[in-house]
Amino acid sequence: MDELPGALGTSASLSLRMGQTIFSSAALLFMCLDVEFYSYTAFCFLVTVMGLVIPWSLTLSLVDAYSVFVKCPLRQPGIMLVIIIGDWVLSFLSLAAACSTAGVTDLLLNINRYHCPARLCSRYQLSAAMAFLSWFLSLASSLFNLWRLPSL
Amino acid sequence: MDELPGALGTSASLSLRMGQTIFSSAALLFMCLDVEFYSYTAFCFLVTVMGLVIPWSLTLSLVDAYSVFVKCPLRQPGIMLVIIIGDWVLSFLSLAAACSTAGVTDLLLNINRYHCPARLCSRYQLSAAMAFLSWFLSLASSLFNLWRLPSL
Repeated sequence: MDELPGALGTSASLSLRMGQTIFSSAALLFMCLDVEFYSYTAFCFLVTVMGLVIPWSLTLSLVDAYSVFVKCPLRQPGIMLVIIIGDWVLSFLSLAAACSTAGVTDLLLNINRYHCPARLCSRYQLSAAMAFLSWFLSLASSLFNLWRLPSL
Repeated sequence: MDELPGALGTSASLSLRMGQTIFSSAALLFMCLDVEFYSYTAFCFLVTVMGLVIPWSLTLSLVDAYSVFVKCPLRQPGIMLVIIIGDWVLSFLSLAAACSTAGVTDLLLNINRYHCPARLCSRYQLSAAMAFLSWFLSLASSLFNLWRLPSL
């Protein structure tokens, strides 16, 4: 079962982690390019969550790269469990942040053009979309690792 | 493993399902007591999701009640898998609805008192809180059933 694609230490997992890093960095960038996000709780939440997801994914992508290139897979069930739970919690947080950002952006677009010029709002929408993609990839990583856990 | 509390067909599962039904009905009621929610996408989403969660939890609580009182537990892994996936999808949807509602309510409270009189907004907040509780209970049901699945 060591070759299950997507589990920790495979090249599929490395690409999942790199995708998470890229999408969460993109979400953070689109949100932070101006400083207006401080006014909205949902946007601050997104920035906080993405600030947690980026180092987590980056660390795990380094672990994956090490495993792939040095051919030394991680086999400790304890570490896997920590990684699964971490992925899981971060995927919930990403989903929550993406949904609240999407809801708030939609409201800003509807209520009042003054609060949200088109240029800003499309950036918020892009940020929410990136956070959704990052959620999806974290969830996939978590599921693949969970699937592999019993065979360790 | 049939006595794992919380898995389908136990009295703990019955109470989880009843809790889900009660909390999701409360979320729906708090949101629908006035008809203003139609103006906001996030609130319509919450109403839709709660409209899915209520019949699902009600049906499964009937199944649980039947299993508990007639002492005839369900043992088909196929049905369990459908229930786990259903619970899982509904728990994600509940979380998404709760987060977007919470984000939008917070924004309404901050932006402008005109859009949200205190009486209405506290009702929206209660609705979001109930949706969070319903998410938590769905997730618990899903996890207990997933834990039990390999022993079927």
